[in-house]
Amino acid sequence: MTEQVQELIGKEFPCLDKGFVRLIDVMGDDAAIVQAARVSYGAGTKKINEDVGLIRYLLRHLHTTPFEMVEFKFHVKLPIFVARQWIRHRTANVNEYSGRYSEMKDEFYVPAIDQVRAQSATNKQGRAEEAFDPAVADRIRTGMFETQSRLYGEYQDLLNADLAREIARINLPVSNYTEWYWKVDLHNLFHFLKLRIDPHAQYEIRVYGEAMAQLVKAAVPVAYEAFEDYILHARRFSRRERAALKALLPSTSVDPAVLEAAGLKGREAQEFLAKLDELAEL
Amino acid sequence: MTEQVQELIGKEFPCLDKGFVRLIDVMGDDAAIVQAARVSYGAGTKKINEDVGLIRYLLRHLHTTPFEMVEFKFHVKLPIFVARQWIRHRTANVNEYSGRYSEMKDEFYVPAIDQVRAQSATNKQGRAEEAFDPAVADRIRTGMFETQSRLYGEYQDLLNADLAREIARINLPVSNYTEWYWKVDLHNLFHFLKLRIDPHAQYEIRVYGEAMAQLVKAAVPVAYEAFEDYILHARRFSRRERAALKALLPSTSVDPAVLEAAGLKGREAQEFLAKLDELAEL
Amino acid sequence: MTEQVQELIGKEFPCLDKGFVRLIDVMGDDAAIVQAARVSYGAGTKKINEDVGLIRYLLRHLHTTPFEMVEFKFHVKLPIFVARQWIRHRTANVNEYSGRYSEMKDEFYVPAIDQVRAQSATNKQGRAEEAFDPAVADRIRTGMFETQSRLYGEYQDLLNADLAREIARINLPVSNYTEWYWKVDLHNLFHFLKLRIDPHAQYEIRVYGEAMAQLVKAAVPVAYEAFEDYILHARRFSRRERAALKALLPSTSVDPAVLEAAGLKGREAQEFLAKLDELAEL
Amino acid sequence: MTEQVQELIGKEFPCLDKGFVRLIDVMGDDAAIVQAARVSYGAGTKKINEDVGLIRYLLRHLHTTPFEMVEFKFHVKLPIFVARQWIRHRTANVNEYSGRYSEMKDEFYVPAIDQVRAQSATNKQGRAEEAFDPAVADRIRTGMFETQSRLYGEYQDLLNADLAREIARINLPVSNYTEWYWKVDLHNLFHFLKLRIDPHAQYEIRVYGEAMAQLVKAAVPVAYEAFEDYILHARRFSRRERAALKALLPSTSVDPAVLEAAGLKGREAQEFLAKLDELAEL
Repeated sequence: MTEQVQELIGKEFPCLDKGFVRLIDVMGDDAAIVQAARVSYGAGTKKINEDVGLIRYLLRHLHTTPFEMVEFKFHVKLPIFVARQWIRHRTANVNEYSGRYSEMKDEFYVPAIDQVRAQSATNKQGRAEEAFDPAVADRIRTGMFETQSRLYGEYQDLLNADLAREIARINLPVSNYTEWYWKVDLHNLFHFLKLRIDPHAQYEIRVYGEAMAQLVKAAVPVAYEAFEDYILHARRFSRRERAALKALLPSTSVDPAVLEAAGLKGREAQEFLAKLDELAEL
Repeated sequence: MTEQVQELIGKEFPCLDKGFVRLIDVMGDDAAIVQAARVSYGAGTKKINEDVGLIRYLLRHLHTTPFEMVEFKFHVKLPIFVARQWIRHRTANVNEYSGRYSEMKDEFYVPAIDQVRAQSATNKQGRAEEAFDPAVADRIRTGMFETQSRLYGEYQDLLNADLAREIARINLPVSNYTEWYWKVDLHNLFHFLKLRIDPHAQYEIRVYGEAMAQLVKAAVPVAYEAFEDYILHARRFSRRERAALKALLPSTSVDPAVLEAAGLKGREAQEFLAKLDELAEL
Repeated sequence: MTEQVQELIGKEFPCLDKGFVRLIDVMGDDAAIVQAARVSYGAGTKKINEDVGLIRYLLRHLHTTPFEMVEFKFHVKLPIFVARQWIRHRTANVNEYSGRYSEMKDEFYVPAIDQVRAQSATNKQGRAEEAFDPAVADRIRTGMFETQSRLYGEYQDLLNADLAREIARINLPVSNYTEWYWKVDLHNLFHFLKLRIDPHAQYEIRVYGEAMAQLVKAAVPVAYEAFEDYILHARRFSRRERAALKALLPSTSVDPAVLEAAGLKGREAQEFLAKLDELAEL
Repeated sequence: MTEQVQELIGKEFPCLDKGFVRLIDVMGDDAAIVQAARVSYGAGTKKINEDVGLIRYLLRHLHTTPFEMVEFKFHVKLPIFVARQWIRHRTANVNEYSGRYSEMKDEFYVPAIDQVRAQSATNKQGRAEEAFDPAVADRIRTGMFETQSRLYGEYQDLLNADLAREIARINLPVSNYTEWYWKVDLHNLFHFLKLRIDPHAQYEIRVYGEAMAQLVKAAVPVAYEAFEDYILHARRFSRRERAALKALLPSTSVDPAVLEAAGLKGREAQEFLAKLDELAEL
């Protein structure tokens, strides 16, 4: 682990109003991806720029197993409704705070004023781009605070009446914060980030995705950049969309200056040209 | 699928106050386990009692892969806090109702009067054996009802104010009902049942485990009985506990009548005697 | 299960010189995908063309969980070296013939004459496009036959000398045929097919992929067509490739006739236009 | 990582005649298990003996998720037939040497003279306890050597004739050595060890299991001892076997001296007595 990563370990990166992400441990780095891909005796004698090329090649061609050789462990504090989306990523290890065993804490999520928004007109599962009128939003937030306080008070009353914790907590809302340790390999973490950094993800989980992305970037900078280029900012074009592209492109001959300006060199440039040639087969 | 199982398909088996389990589909039966174990061309010519013996042998010796060849699909309506325990079983497929996409329904779990109980004195994560005084329990239940009604009213108000569904729902409690389709193979389902039928499981998930157990029993009766004998009602004795057993057993010679009375015959009887002999090695 | 699928069950589809794929069972169909996506009470009242649209929408947007609700079980006979590639797909259930328990059979794979090819000049892990000179290829095949016969003879000799099966088999080659039952959900099966139908996959596993694809197509025709359009024949363009596309496209305004000719209608057409608009942000 | 573990990293532990296991990296230690179980801010102030008790408690009660928080990465050189058994453990990450991409090496497994044994008379999938007559065994080994040399020679001839590597290798035997990186969490590693250290596992994989067990023991000594006590050297007694135990035990009252002599103290002693009491319910 580099000193830079070492310094990040254990630090709280705040998320939402009361949550956080902390990097607990990392196994491996960019070199570990290369090492596994080479199934060889160590980082060896290859030059750094060859390693960069290999990592980028692997990700571009979806040779994903070497990325599974890097493992991240996080400590996360998050609202229950975010935890419910997060846990759908099954290939990961989790230890969560237990409301049966321990008392839930008096911590609830209330959206910031600019996140109090209307139902989106175009996206059945999202919110609008613009915030509510601040006065209205403020009233909604105040209402939420009051509800949460009242619910926590009722929870305390039930505990004081000696009701079992596992029953007393059933009327606590999904805005209540929980915590967990979450451990995942880099391949599955990239998949998580792709889905959860995406603008279609709910804002409240995106915030966590973005915080984690910064930590991943620090730990495996080469792999992370490849992830941005080939996955996060890549777009898939369907068979029909490729047919439309074919009709729209004036020719399949490409001025080398275009490739250069786009940053496409060597094998990547050839692969792009091959993709254009392939359109002819449609 | 036998006619008996066919008739169970789609039927609602009520669980808790408003939930249910419905069997949607089953792939395979006891014969499918045998078929996979034999990697052969069909149920073949073996007699039923040989098949029974094979299934029991497989489960007893933890040859679990043939049990993965049977698949169950359920439709379940359950409170969110039960869903949160359930989803920890990762080797399964899930499609859940979405509170981002659709409006949550006005259905909440309230424990029956005999389940309103104190914190257990001995089990940090459970409830006591005895119910509260009925008058007290009734008051607690009434309070729960009122809280749930109020929360659903507030939710409706927020929706009417056009707040995005994905935000409006954050103060709904974990007693709110959700629904999902859940698909799992028999090996992983047995693991689920073992943990969730267990007296240490929270009562509210146990109810679902028990309902599902009945459906599994109808669909794969031989495998289910083996599960009861070798897993559910089996007990593991540690190295130290085996040393204690050795000291407590008057001799390792066993009267055949004892074996017979216990239902231990043939290979099972030999295996038991071998386990006793093994104690001598401690 | 439709009658058409019913008729396919159990039929051997030959693969390579001595292998096959047989469909043993299927849980679910196109309607089961829709049913899970709707988490509702059945196929319901929606029209077929709405269902088609939903399935295509789900796959296009990588909402993959409803596809996990369909399950396939195959019986496959395949050379060991193919089995070794296949087994890397971990989210599946397997029961394989055991060379410890049973005698391996006298069946080995020998490539057909047109598959006896040189190392590819461009692909470090593949073979050339053109076959060897038939006479040379024939000599190679004859040598392979002879080696396999000799090895099986030696295996028999060792068994006759009462050497334990689990040791006697260690010099049998990876061309030896094995068999297994393999069960997988449709989402993971699509992933398998994408990788194994691909021209970069080794020919010998591609043959199995293609046979299975026909069976999948018969069982879930709508989902399979969506798979072809949005996954199999889709191409991913990286951030840099998108920058190059932007430079190459004369304009982002698109003649509706182009969309129509490409088969892009309604929401799909809008999504394509949005992808073009997005290029401006690069 | 302790210095002791640090020193083990990268060392080759020979297995069989030409294989090895090397520990490449470990994430976490006994304290990491405790940390996850406590979902707290670090190893904290609890005393070591409380941590020991907690780890033992967790494993005894199959609270397995905290054990998933420790991760091991190994580099292994092993014969293909061992790799085929090993890969059945699906919850792990693997990067294997590729016979399509690279030339297979001239290294094959030949059993040591004392492992050349007859088929077991009692175990359909194992070998006998006694070795063959040394002269016979020696002749078998010589035959194996010769076959392997001849096969590797033929492989070289095919490569020299420029046959594609992916085809040329199909007659190499499953005794040929391959290599891989294998990464797994401690919970799944314990499961692997339980099955592969077991006397019913094939000797050739057991050798690897035993080498890895030593490395695991060094890295997580407390958890490993708990594994030995509660899993490896524990035995499961079925419902019927428990009925037989009940009949065989002279009484359920236990002399405290017996518990003490067996090493059963405190909560463990109580749990043992409870298991005996439970027999009465049968």
